[in-house]
Amino acid sequence: MFSITVKDHVMIAHSLPDPYFGPAQNMHGATYVVEASFKSPSLNEQNVVIDIGEATDILKDVLQEMAYQNLDELPQFRGILTTTEYLAQYIHGKIKSALREDLILKVELFESHVASAAYEE
Amino acid sequence: MFSITVKDHVMIAHSLPDPYFGPAQNMHGATYVVEASFKSPSLNEQNVVIDIGEATDILKDVLQEMAYQNLDELPQFRGILTTTEYLAQYIHGKIKSALREDLILKVELFESHVASAAYEE
Amino acid sequence: MFSITVKDHVMIAHSLPDPYFGPAQNMHGATYVVEASFKSPSLNEQNVVIDIGEATDILKDVLQEMAYQNLDELPQFRGILTTTEYLAQYIHGKIKSALREDLILKVELFESHVASAAYEE
Amino acid sequence: MFSITVKDHVMIAHSLPDPYFGPAQNMHGATYVVEASFKSPSLNEQNVVIDIGEATDILKDVLQEMAYQNLDELPQFRGILTTTEYLAQYIHGKIKSALREDLILKVELFESHVASAAYEE
Amino acid sequence: MFSITVKDHVMIAHSLPDPYFGPAQNMHGATYVVEASFKSPSLNEQNVVIDIGEATDILKDVLQEMAYQNLDELPQFRGILTTTEYLAQYIHGKIKSALREDLILKVELFESHVASAAYEE
Amino acid sequence: MFSITVKDHVMIAHSLPDPYFGPAQNMHGATYVVEASFKSPSLNEQNVVIDIGEATDILKDVLQEMAYQNLDELPQFRGILTTTEYLAQYIHGKIKSALREDLILKVELFESHVASAAYEE
Repeated sequence: MFSITVKDHVMIAHSLPDPYFGPAQNMHGATYVVEASFKSPSLNEQNVVIDIGEATDILKDVLQEMAYQNLDELPQFRGILTTTEYLAQYIHGKIKSALREDLILKVELFESHVASAAYEE
Repeated sequence: MFSITVKDHVMIAHSLPDPYFGPAQNMHGATYVVEASFKSPSLNEQNVVIDIGEATDILKDVLQEMAYQNLDELPQFRGILTTTEYLAQYIHGKIKSALREDLILKVELFESHVASAAYEE
Repeated sequence: MFSITVKDHVMIAHSLPDPYFGPAQNMHGATYVVEASFKSPSLNEQNVVIDIGEATDILKDVLQEMAYQNLDELPQFRGILTTTEYLAQYIHGKIKSALREDLILKVELFESHVASAAYEE
Repeated sequence: MFSITVKDHVMIAHSLPDPYFGPAQNMHGATYVVEASFKSPSLNEQNVVIDIGEATDILKDVLQEMAYQNLDELPQFRGILTTTEYLAQYIHGKIKSALREDLILKVELFESHVASAAYEE
Repeated sequence: MFSITVKDHVMIAHSLPDPYFGPAQNMHGATYVVEASFKSPSLNEQNVVIDIGEATDILKDVLQEMAYQNLDELPQFRGILTTTEYLAQYIHGKIKSALREDLILKVELFESHVASAAYEE
Repeated sequence: MFSITVKDHVMIAHSLPDPYFGPAQNMHGATYVVEASFKSPSLNEQNVVIDIGEATDILKDVLQEMAYQNLDELPQFRGILTTTEYLAQYIHGKIKSALREDLILKVELFESHVASAAYEE
């Protein structure tokens, strides 16, 4: 199995309005450093899974939707607890839709130097 | 010159309401991974600049004030552009006040894997 | 599959008394930076695998048992070669016991910037 | 499943002579920071997957073949697009041949702080 | 003293044709992960040393000149040993020329996970 | 001012027998990831501060003395609190003695992902 991984980041505000989250119920924010890994059992004619430049552009485009936004005010996240796990799955879905190739995808969001969340097929 | 450095992080929301900041004028947020470096020309009787546990506790206490907060709503930041540079200096001042020893201090805030800001004496 | 990963560290002394280990037969030590990853095919009602704070606390508690200890003197490690692989499995077992949820667990111990060992189900 | 991971690096020149690669068709180069992970369902008598020193030496030896070389001029790469994915598989094969144990192997090449490629069985 | 630091990377080929460099006399290459730090004793009206976006763009533009190039063939490096130290100073000069503000600048090039070189005023 | 930085690591056991250190009074240990930075206002004829290979070898040789050792049992550390700060200065002295050139030196020891200590002239 081959894979390539690219990295970008996005800065957002949100709140997690459920007593489960303690102080994170407040409006706060995060920098998510996002790694997207694209996997395939074989390489294409150019010996790549996907061009690293193309993968980087797709990730950048997908993150653009939430860059410098308050997620609480975006209609796609209305009434949803936008946890790091949820956002990993959401970004995963968006990248999948943008891909022309049928690649296996993993998305990991690092919310600090000591915590991350991921979603993979 | 001796130094020790400790690291912690804090997740906040804020906006930067000046056209200079483009999309960052919106309510958004950041994870700041914060490094505090304490410098001294000599060591104390225990061969340390400052106990790493004590330095870690001071940094944690100072960051507690803004943890999971919207900086726009805190009175100490009213009317202030809370840039990463500004916050580095603000945290610097708070740590200095909490220190019993007269140590030279540098504070660096990493807002992503590709950008940071620092303030030092 | 969803996952979250948290990180902590522990500083220990031990020896590896078998000629196989060359100079590491001596009493020496290590800082292990420990990553614990918790995986689940679904999220709970709060859209998380496990609360990051709870995961962090569990990891911290498990590491407490060996923090600042000489593993050669702890009864649970008597007569055992406490390699990084073995300790990854040991910590894995301890975290599993502390978990209320039935999560798939991976534990990785980074013993330096160039070497790590892991155990996963 | 147990695993250990070791890290080394190699600096090479090459070109990717296919219009698909845009500016990377030029003679350029890369530092590849290479991680080799060795996996096994069980440990040996010394409680290790493979000795970290032995794993480190094997990786170093394998990388030696291309260290400070122009890959375009090495016979083993004649007419081949030496992408990061391809090189991950190539290094994977060389390490497999050097291993006495039957271990599952993953090789990941980090070509920068924002991109990597991997090959695993 | 305030500072901000931004990071980018560039992939180049070159040789170091002096017996001093042993195997690095061969045509080989490197990924340089480049950190540029901009320092100032004061902040501007927007509470920044320099806009992080502007700093990032300047660094990207400067690196563009050598991206995917064989430095041995560029006229500006004719007859010059393009060591990491030399390139740090060269990039430093180019960034200084592109800056409108009079900022103190440090440039550090990481050529691997275990070695870097820097130039600062 | 030019500088180059190289990195290596060493694994040791020791105790800090003073009540000031709480649980670290016990026999425990650490992996120190050690960065040595060599600074000079000018480059030599080969456009380097010092050859990276030579700097790497010097650092490796100096660390060899304490590799896989219990510092409490080494005569050079008898009766000394071998804190990270102290060891940074000790290693600094040893590297200085091994240097043929008159370079300014900084030594930083990372004892975990969240704490380090340094000594510089």
